[in-house]
Amino acid sequence: MAIAAYRVSRVRRRDYDPPDSPTSVGYVRSSLARLADQENPLVLQCGRPFWPIDVTYETYGKLNSDRDNAILVCHALSGDAHAAGWDPDALEQGRPWRADRPGWWDSMIGPGKALDTNKYFVVCSNVLGSCYGTTGPSSTDPSSGKPYGSSFPVVTVGDWVRLEERLVTHLKIDKLKAVIGGSLGGQQALEWALAYPERVESAIVIGASARLSAQGLAFNAVGRYAIVNDPNFRGGDYYDGVPPRVGLSVARRLAHITYLSEESLEAKFGRRYRHGCGPSYGFSTEFEVESYLDHQGEKFVERFDANSYLCITRAMDYYDASDWGDGDLERALSRAKATFLLVSFSSDWLYTPAQMEQLALSLAKCEKRVTYVEIPSSAGHDAFLIETETLTEVVKAFLDGQTTKRLSPPLYSQIGL
Amino acid sequence: MAIAAYRVSRVRRRDYDPPDSPTSVGYVRSSLARLADQENPLVLQCGRPFWPIDVTYETYGKLNSDRDNAILVCHALSGDAHAAGWDPDALEQGRPWRADRPGWWDSMIGPGKALDTNKYFVVCSNVLGSCYGTTGPSSTDPSSGKPYGSSFPVVTVGDWVRLEERLVTHLKIDKLKAVIGGSLGGQQALEWALAYPERVESAIVIGASARLSAQGLAFNAVGRYAIVNDPNFRGGDYYDGVPPRVGLSVARRLAHITYLSEESLEAKFGRRYRHGCGPSYGFSTEFEVESYLDHQGEKFVERFDANSYLCITRAMDYYDASDWGDGDLERALSRAKATFLLVSFSSDWLYTPAQMEQLALSLAKCEKRVTYVEIPSSAGHDAFLIETETLTEVVKAFLDGQTTKRLSPPLYSQIGL
Repeated sequence: MAIAAYRVSRVRRRDYDPPDSPTSVGYVRSSLARLADQENPLVLQCGRPFWPIDVTYETYGKLNSDRDNAILVCHALSGDAHAAGWDPDALEQGRPWRADRPGWWDSMIGPGKALDTNKYFVVCSNVLGSCYGTTGPSSTDPSSGKPYGSSFPVVTVGDWVRLEERLVTHLKIDKLKAVIGGSLGGQQALEWALAYPERVESAIVIGASARLSAQGLAFNAVGRYAIVNDPNFRGGDYYDGVPPRVGLSVARRLAHITYLSEESLEAKFGRRYRHGCGPSYGFSTEFEVESYLDHQGEKFVERFDANSYLCITRAMDYYDASDWGDGDLERALSRAKATFLLVSFSSDWLYTPAQMEQLALSLAKCEKRVTYVEIPSSAGHDAFLIETETLTEVVKAFLDGQTTKRLSPPLYSQIGL
Repeated sequence: MAIAAYRVSRVRRRDYDPPDSPTSVGYVRSSLARLADQENPLVLQCGRPFWPIDVTYETYGKLNSDRDNAILVCHALSGDAHAAGWDPDALEQGRPWRADRPGWWDSMIGPGKALDTNKYFVVCSNVLGSCYGTTGPSSTDPSSGKPYGSSFPVVTVGDWVRLEERLVTHLKIDKLKAVIGGSLGGQQALEWALAYPERVESAIVIGASARLSAQGLAFNAVGRYAIVNDPNFRGGDYYDGVPPRVGLSVARRLAHITYLSEESLEAKFGRRYRHGCGPSYGFSTEFEVESYLDHQGEKFVERFDANSYLCITRAMDYYDASDWGDGDLERALSRAKATFLLVSFSSDWLYTPAQMEQLALSLAKCEKRVTYVEIPSSAGHDAFLIETETLTEVVKAFLDGQTTKRLSPPLYSQIGL
């Protein structure tokens, strides 16, 4: 019997690339494209033809003359189209959270980085239903002149991918070099390979799986319960009043625990008290970990819309890649023509390595080309945003067509290729 | 690489012992004892002398003439003094949740059971701050004539144990044969061995640890945040109005996820939809696991008080056995004179086997007599209420002074004895 060996994970203080760094894409303004209108509505999975849809997206690097060097990056629950570089209008346009840091995957996208903008044309768009520029519940419904609120449709990962396909077509790209994403972004990458087999050369699925587990469904359900039962929610039509901050904050605090791991929480905070040592015998914040959750909750309600949160978590619930095979995952996966790179993180308990292995094995059984890598990390689900050094090694090797057999063997297990 | 092997756990439909069963303790009425008054207040760990305190408790079996066959059972967060047998007044006295089932550990307590009432005098009392008969936030403050509400003190596991010691003294019991409990009850058993080393022959600590992890602190913090920010909470003084049901329901739903395991949720509910197949594209309950959480939340708010929930989770947060050694666990444990049985469950991720192993090893280093058993179970933290067949085998062997070496070797790992 051994004592539980807590691996101590350093909290990595990231040194952001400043905009003038040779490895930064610099200042980037997003673009807007109307990709659905009355003549050409997007028929959603729920059956509702929906328009107008404006999509916010950013691009980094240059599309080559053959238009075959494009990589689509898909964002996760609370992400946006601003994946790399710096937002020149962050303060002026009321996005203060973007002022002091670059895009959410800046460490992966730029000259010489994993998604090397000297070689690739990188595109990232904001999903339908979000609150970061693409049409969502807080957008104005032209038929009423008011925000959609409760009348916004419930959308799916499939809907997102079909809208992304319109963007790719709009950019006159026939086939994507790769689609890549972590978490819900990883599920979009998988969905691309199934929905548009001819248009995806490779799919890079990180910290995701073919479907969310029952435990994941349960956590999402509690968060949504807190939101819809916040008295300020008023059925979703709260835009003329106070938003349901408490409910959204509960949802975020809870979700945030699932993004970290037991060991990273232990290493970062343990049972330390904020002030001095020992209890103050009250219910206000006194452990450091409580204070951290307060901070996460407060930051989030300043930047995110509760209806978008409902919308996106429901899409997360509904996604099941096996729907393409009427519940049979292997039948579903047999549609794919892409080469796959699947990456999981050892301490991710939201989308576990075991789930990813299952997907890898199912792909292998369908004789798809698949590389599966489990990266040892104590960072939990958030590792896809943190372990970018190791991710860079893995993704670069994959995009360069190398097998990961070249990588240090104790670090990686793999099948296929 | 292996596919994730989900062990399928059957949901055990327990056949409750009816009151006339030879293995049931039958109908049991609880007793009430005033254990602190103005002359003899309980000085709480927070420094406040507190009185009056009435304690509700039940007893099963008979105290022998040597008064040395008593076993104290300690309950967990939402438990009560009604550990075994049937409540004859459940319906008449407004406790309908007790009408159709016996006490919470009836499968462990009774003639011939693990805590054999033919041999032992079993005592279980309700903790200070609860809402099941012992003085708590919903009790009337004699100085105001109103419920305590926000003026109720923040109590600790140490306070509970010192009150239990008063009960044991009140019952004229000098030394307990054993103190036993699961979860927070297990922490009380551990605390007994440290606070009253001379008065505990053996401590049986089940599904617990020396302290709650940072992740556990985080989950408790989210639950409390939901309660104290429910508009009906009104600072804790809500007894003349509507209680903070939404906040309490959020807290319970969330906590309930931590009581189960990923694999038990997968086996019980998976991704099954309640009605027919496939999504209805809305935010109301449609997955079976959502419906289960609804049920858990609704049941709980009918029977539990939000202030008690705050109180008891805070006690859970604060407990750290190493406080007896100024932060040094081994120094703390060196006080103990009891023989220890520690039991963990393989899929418990709230109080993990690794944490229990650490406690076991620390006890062994202090040369205490300790048996550590990890029971393989897919039931998660709730296993202490479910795996009572295996628990019976382990606890009986321990109480009979057998080493667990007699038990089937693949099932148990152990140190000591």
